[in-house]
Amino acid sequence: MHRMDQAYALLEAECRDRGVDLDAAARRLAELEVETPSWGYGDSGTRFKVFKQAGVPRNAFEKIDDAAVVHRLTGACPSVAIHIPWDKVDDYRALAQHARDSGLRIGAVNPNLFQDDDYMLGSITNVRPEIRRKAIQHMLECVDIMREVGSTVLSLWVPDGTNYPGQGDIRRRKRWLEEALREVYDALDPDMRLLIEYKFFEPAFYHTDLADWGMAYLAAEKLGPKAQVLVDTGHHPQGTNVEHIVAVLLDEGRLGGFHFNSRKYADDDLIVGAIHPYELFLIFAEIVAAERSGDQRVAQTARAIAYMIDQSHNIEPKIPAMIRSVCNIQTQFAKALLVPWDLLRERQEQNDVLGAEAVLRETFELDVRPLLWRIREERGLPVDPMKAFAESGYMGAISSRGIGGSGWS
Amino acid sequence: MHRMDQAYALLEAECRDRGVDLDAAARRLAELEVETPSWGYGDSGTRFKVFKQAGVPRNAFEKIDDAAVVHRLTGACPSVAIHIPWDKVDDYRALAQHARDSGLRIGAVNPNLFQDDDYMLGSITNVRPEIRRKAIQHMLECVDIMREVGSTVLSLWVPDGTNYPGQGDIRRRKRWLEEALREVYDALDPDMRLLIEYKFFEPAFYHTDLADWGMAYLAAEKLGPKAQVLVDTGHHPQGTNVEHIVAVLLDEGRLGGFHFNSRKYADDDLIVGAIHPYELFLIFAEIVAAERSGDQRVAQTARAIAYMIDQSHNIEPKIPAMIRSVCNIQTQFAKALLVPWDLLRERQEQNDVLGAEAVLRETFELDVRPLLWRIREERGLPVDPMKAFAESGYMGAISSRGIGGSGWS
Amino acid sequence: MHRMDQAYALLEAECRDRGVDLDAAARRLAELEVETPSWGYGDSGTRFKVFKQAGVPRNAFEKIDDAAVVHRLTGACPSVAIHIPWDKVDDYRALAQHARDSGLRIGAVNPNLFQDDDYMLGSITNVRPEIRRKAIQHMLECVDIMREVGSTVLSLWVPDGTNYPGQGDIRRRKRWLEEALREVYDALDPDMRLLIEYKFFEPAFYHTDLADWGMAYLAAEKLGPKAQVLVDTGHHPQGTNVEHIVAVLLDEGRLGGFHFNSRKYADDDLIVGAIHPYELFLIFAEIVAAERSGDQRVAQTARAIAYMIDQSHNIEPKIPAMIRSVCNIQTQFAKALLVPWDLLRERQEQNDVLGAEAVLRETFELDVRPLLWRIREERGLPVDPMKAFAESGYMGAISSRGIGGSGWS
Amino acid sequence: MHRMDQAYALLEAECRDRGVDLDAAARRLAELEVETPSWGYGDSGTRFKVFKQAGVPRNAFEKIDDAAVVHRLTGACPSVAIHIPWDKVDDYRALAQHARDSGLRIGAVNPNLFQDDDYMLGSITNVRPEIRRKAIQHMLECVDIMREVGSTVLSLWVPDGTNYPGQGDIRRRKRWLEEALREVYDALDPDMRLLIEYKFFEPAFYHTDLADWGMAYLAAEKLGPKAQVLVDTGHHPQGTNVEHIVAVLLDEGRLGGFHFNSRKYADDDLIVGAIHPYELFLIFAEIVAAERSGDQRVAQTARAIAYMIDQSHNIEPKIPAMIRSVCNIQTQFAKALLVPWDLLRERQEQNDVLGAEAVLRETFELDVRPLLWRIREERGLPVDPMKAFAESGYMGAISSRGIGGSGWS
Repeated sequence: MHRMDQAYALLEAECRDRGVDLDAAARRLAELEVETPSWGYGDSGTRFKVFKQAGVPRNAFEKIDDAAVVHRLTGACPSVAIHIPWDKVDDYRALAQHARDSGLRIGAVNPNLFQDDDYMLGSITNVRPEIRRKAIQHMLECVDIMREVGSTVLSLWVPDGTNYPGQGDIRRRKRWLEEALREVYDALDPDMRLLIEYKFFEPAFYHTDLADWGMAYLAAEKLGPKAQVLVDTGHHPQGTNVEHIVAVLLDEGRLGGFHFNSRKYADDDLIVGAIHPYELFLIFAEIVAAERSGDQRVAQTARAIAYMIDQSHNIEPKIPAMIRSVCNIQTQFAKALLVPWDLLRERQEQNDVLGAEAVLRETFELDVRPLLWRIREERGLPVDPMKAFAESGYMGAISSRGIGGSGWS
Repeated sequence: MHRMDQAYALLEAECRDRGVDLDAAARRLAELEVETPSWGYGDSGTRFKVFKQAGVPRNAFEKIDDAAVVHRLTGACPSVAIHIPWDKVDDYRALAQHARDSGLRIGAVNPNLFQDDDYMLGSITNVRPEIRRKAIQHMLECVDIMREVGSTVLSLWVPDGTNYPGQGDIRRRKRWLEEALREVYDALDPDMRLLIEYKFFEPAFYHTDLADWGMAYLAAEKLGPKAQVLVDTGHHPQGTNVEHIVAVLLDEGRLGGFHFNSRKYADDDLIVGAIHPYELFLIFAEIVAAERSGDQRVAQTARAIAYMIDQSHNIEPKIPAMIRSVCNIQTQFAKALLVPWDLLRERQEQNDVLGAEAVLRETFELDVRPLLWRIREERGLPVDPMKAFAESGYMGAISSRGIGGSGWS
Repeated sequence: MHRMDQAYALLEAECRDRGVDLDAAARRLAELEVETPSWGYGDSGTRFKVFKQAGVPRNAFEKIDDAAVVHRLTGACPSVAIHIPWDKVDDYRALAQHARDSGLRIGAVNPNLFQDDDYMLGSITNVRPEIRRKAIQHMLECVDIMREVGSTVLSLWVPDGTNYPGQGDIRRRKRWLEEALREVYDALDPDMRLLIEYKFFEPAFYHTDLADWGMAYLAAEKLGPKAQVLVDTGHHPQGTNVEHIVAVLLDEGRLGGFHFNSRKYADDDLIVGAIHPYELFLIFAEIVAAERSGDQRVAQTARAIAYMIDQSHNIEPKIPAMIRSVCNIQTQFAKALLVPWDLLRERQEQNDVLGAEAVLRETFELDVRPLLWRIREERGLPVDPMKAFAESGYMGAISSRGIGGSGWS
Repeated sequence: MHRMDQAYALLEAECRDRGVDLDAAARRLAELEVETPSWGYGDSGTRFKVFKQAGVPRNAFEKIDDAAVVHRLTGACPSVAIHIPWDKVDDYRALAQHARDSGLRIGAVNPNLFQDDDYMLGSITNVRPEIRRKAIQHMLECVDIMREVGSTVLSLWVPDGTNYPGQGDIRRRKRWLEEALREVYDALDPDMRLLIEYKFFEPAFYHTDLADWGMAYLAAEKLGPKAQVLVDTGHHPQGTNVEHIVAVLLDEGRLGGFHFNSRKYADDDLIVGAIHPYELFLIFAEIVAAERSGDQRVAQTARAIAYMIDQSHNIEPKIPAMIRSVCNIQTQFAKALLVPWDLLRERQEQNDVLGAEAVLRETFELDVRPLLWRIREERGLPVDPMKAFAESGYMGAISSRGIGGSGWS
């Protein structure tokens, strides 16, 4: 511990030299809230195989139990996203109460438009009106559930698309999509938001109705201010500059939230920060810059971002994978909070390419463990949440759940 | 020729069976106009080497001469795009007159925002206001030139971007870009259009200020109805469904034009239709469908598209490469005109995935040479423009121009 | 039919002009054999959902029944690949007899190294020796099954890989892989071949032990002449020139077979020829050129290629999707057979870039339906296999199988 | 400086806890040699524009002067690669002497097969034998130059390829390539190595004769032990796991060297470590693991790797960009040296996915500045080479060279 004190003092001195307020960074970092998804605690896999793990929760209540453990150890995850019908229960108020009893609240409600047999050829863009109606009703039902559980975010992924040229009429499907979203939007309460996700491909392999941020933006822009775009970090073509998209959406007041995960190839849904940590840092750097912006719309948009994790833990134990993700997010967010913005601006103004680049990269290269340690210690949290979990005995306790718990179904 | 008559009769019979009006297709095909770029007649290359070809035009007038040959042989290329300052002349009215004398008109005017030394770190998004001003003035000068030459299209590629994280402030640059475009837009005459191009990367390698169709759309949408998006077929991430983007922009009334070329990797600028002919067909299928749309905005947008070629003939002779591109465009457009739309709609309505797919693919597999032959013969054009060029003696005639003609500078 | 005669005569005349022997092409085309996979008749899907179709075969025998229908209608699919344990039966000789009774033979045997719970962290590259042993035993069992069913091809996809940096020791896994393959190779009979597949990613998302053709080649080259590489057309990074890889492997005598399908994004497993038909043609052009090569090793390698389909029909009916794939393969192979090779060589020798390119592209643009029609009619096959299937009543007949037949498990 | 002592002590304590020998790491790090390229000091750019910088060296001698500055300040760059004919001089012994006088030696000699007009359609794979001969002669001349300057590495990039299907005969070109390399290989002295580079695309846009590591490996394997593969970190398809390729080539004794740079899109040639620093670390982790391997061939191969930088500084000042690259390489190599290998192996053996991943990632997250500081201070080098260069006055001194120095020509 003495070492960590020393390390903290060194970091503090360095920040001082760079004109960075470490206390302010610590305060902001301590406020960061990351929502975990109920389905992240259940079994998942690839199309080839779902490997069942022991101790996986068997229902929505047990998923909340697991989410509560993550919050208890990290102090950063006070809400849990639910997915309907995976988390369908008879009494949603009871579910919300269970969350509160566990120190949590229900976060985003996620409709499911991809697992009903009727949706094989599309849900809200299906050529058959009765299927579009069914899908809209499901979303309206989710809005009702939001009221029951006290959620303010409807997190919508429309998986619709086609597998072959000619299979569908792209423009007609676009109109149906707009109609459906309009009806859902109009059903929202004033304090509710609709976050519209986009995805490059999968499960559709020729065209996806909402394939990129531009299409999601277009939909949101037509609906109104309560509609915003949700960025899943794994839903882009290779090479895409995600932080650029983040900056553009922030500038337009249309960035509503994130689904964090990491990827090397497609929508790999790996642990956040495991593949390209610098990219995650650069995304947070855009956000922290926006939070500090003099443009009120931009700053408010940034401060209202819903940070959510969306991963598929196919081969690793799920709860520690979630804790690891939260810690990785905290690590990169912490680094972004230590960027010396005035220095960066100064070098940009001087067209000092190397100097400006160095400001961001060198900030990324800092070791921020002392800062994480401080905010954990100050709040009475374990300084090493991974270790604390391993020692908690929780894995042993849930083994009684057996194999074959809840999955993506 | 007898064979072609037979082949035409067979195609006609097949179209009749499929409920396709071959005469109407022939009429529409005959009207197709494809603009060729003055710079496509000059030397170009990769960053490693520009291989100089003999006979390359030495100035804007000679480029128009070459473009006139392409039009004479294809009947489909009545306009030529110019690029300022590559085509800078003292007297633009004289240049326009030379075009008219050659049977052409001046098409789009293209400003150059990437070759002045001042633009090394950006033109309209440069941190230095005097450089932004210079770039804006250059675009305003291009609007003046449009008036001189009778052009109605300002075709704008903003190559600005950064090579390193931190080098620039993305949101600030976005605001500068919007400011600059606003000033140019306001200077347009009522019958002028501003077509905004986007590009995934190159010459910037970290972020490009207008990186995708969404960013170009956003800019156009803020400006007003005279601003539209220009799609260069080579400016997308790998795997992008370009025809989907085309459909979305058509539906929004924001598709202004194309820069046609083909690519396998990045912005390879190869001859149109040389790498992925089916994709080109699918793009035209979206356009033809839009031309037939009952939604007037959609149909008018489709009919007003500016079809332009933008290629870099690094190793092949330039005039025949241009003729080849025009023919390839005609070929795929012809196929798109033969799609049996009612049948397609019927199968889509029945959720007949294989049947609907077959409609498009089988149309693509048709041999449309008889149709091309007919529209050429009817108009007194050579039925084989490539052969006609080879036999024209033009290559020999221009060899007197020598080596070292005009290039990208 | 009269029309088709006319069309055939026109094609014949054109081939004569181009110096192409249409009869020889017809003979070669008629010999083309394409193997269909037993699993292609069963249910499949994405990781999000397997949509169950009615009439799906319930066991290996019924899969052979479906494969027999495809062969009956196309005359091109005399063998069916099996997958162990999906096609596990008590009596493999009975299965082979059932195939023979249905006019088929058993083709490649495919081991499964990805669905046993033990394989979660690897099969033949697993750090635990008992799991590697188990996987090797499974492959040896497949060699035994080959003897029972009279198969000569062991078609091996090693799905092993890791999801995170550090998870595995890449070089150590490579050595284990080589050890395992050696043992299997040594168990092969003299007339058996081991075809080694590679894949860019999925189900592993950080590294895949056999990630590209180079790694598969390396393994094959160490084993000996009976080991060759299997190219799945959907297993490459975006932009990869697959026909180039095909040419290289042919030149080295190491191209053993194909898994045909098509893709736009990742390993989409769509119907062959549905997304990028020109690429399929170019692959066949390399093969036909190799078949004609004066280098005996090259020619023999080309003639011994095992053509296999490997698709995932998630939303389309499976039997017609298979027929469609076979027809698309025949179409592009037919085109490749019509390439005027001497003309191509002549233009290549003259460094006539445009002329040489035109030879291939124009061959692709031919309508080869008359040729397909001829070889079908000559052999008493339906000239339109898709229509013949629709009219056969087979779909109705198998509806009694109900929903919930065999899938990837 | 007191702070750095403290930081060093903390790092030392942490290493001790993790079982890592910091002294050994420091020794190995101090030995790391990184070769800089003469052309990296000259003007370069994109195909759109080469922005000329002031002070760029005007000839090979001045490039060596600049390289010497980089070595003087970093202590890590004792050799400089030359490129013929860009560095053509009358007296190569004089050039080598100038290098020695500047504290350097000449490293790899790079032939140029892409800038002669004759090479437009290929050099060693050109259909015309006299051009193939010319290209071979040029490479043989480079071997002679190697003798003159005392170089032991022939670093060969074959840029040959085609832009269009059909343009060339892929297999025939492969044979010509093999013939040419054979002749060059046979001319090498016993202590010379031929490093064969590969590249996914550019300047060829349809097929590149040496397109991937497998093709380069194949060529090297046929030649003999003195031929090895050169990995340019920017020459792969998107998503490629470069460290995997590195591991495979190490395992085969065929990894000869690197061209380091970074990329986000294509062959962007940006400063090493600027875009994806974790990937660079993972590459070095494979190398350090191989250096420690019990397999002597693997270990020797790793220790003999030629580390070379190959960048294109289009918009940033060239000398500091080179220093920055060297420092980034040192940073990631330093981190790789601090991996606790025994712990990693232990967790791999336990199939502890999260634990094993954490070992690498946490090592990457260390701040290794104290280690860099130590090895610089011990050797009397500036602890901050970038700052030392800025303060050296060298930029001012070379401004007398003016604008318009040497570039890629």
